[in-house]
Amino acid sequence: MSNKIIQNINDIFAPKARLGIMTILAINEEADFSSLKKQLDLSDGNLGAHMNVLEKENFVEFKKAFVNRRPKTTYKLTETGRKAFTEHLKQLEAIIKKVK
Amino acid sequence: MSNKIIQNINDIFAPKARLGIMTILAINEEADFSSLKKQLDLSDGNLGAHMNVLEKENFVEFKKAFVNRRPKTTYKLTETGRKAFTEHLKQLEAIIKKVK
Repeated sequence: MSNKIIQNINDIFAPKARLGIMTILAINEEADFSSLKKQLDLSDGNLGAHMNVLEKENFVEFKKAFVNRRPKTTYKLTETGRKAFTEHLKQLEAIIKKVK
Repeated sequence: MSNKIIQNINDIFAPKARLGIMTILAINEEADFSSLKKQLDLSDGNLGAHMNVLEKENFVEFKKAFVNRRPKTTYKLTETGRKAFTEHLKQLEAIIKKVK
């Protein structure tokens, strides 16, 4: 066990809300704002803030559309986001293996 | 995938420094301050702050002794800390399984 095992852990994914967002988007092709909000039990402001962080890192991208005249924002992972998250999970898996 | 999968994720363990500390203490019976510092490549202040958080949660306990006339602080997990960390890793494992 040395620094090597945490050096590829990405603190951007550390808060459980962001871990949840990334997990949902990794499993599903895409997810809209209100579905993420509901699944993760987050407020608008809270989810919005986390999505901003993930967008700034170029880990997620979004499209806006009108459905039944109501605006709908749909998110998906970027290739960069998927890669970084996969690497993050790989490191977590290594930690779990070490502790077991 | 629902809120259930992140509700037992403990944000106390989210920062990678704390994940590293808990991992080292889960693997080893105990570890002293300077060994943790070196293994995790943290400053005194940084490691001290993280240890304070973990102590306040009653996840780690420490003893102080003098070795060759120099003070030495040794940490180990409490039963509460071990339980909480095991639960945390179990939830992370469930996420990894879902994403795979």
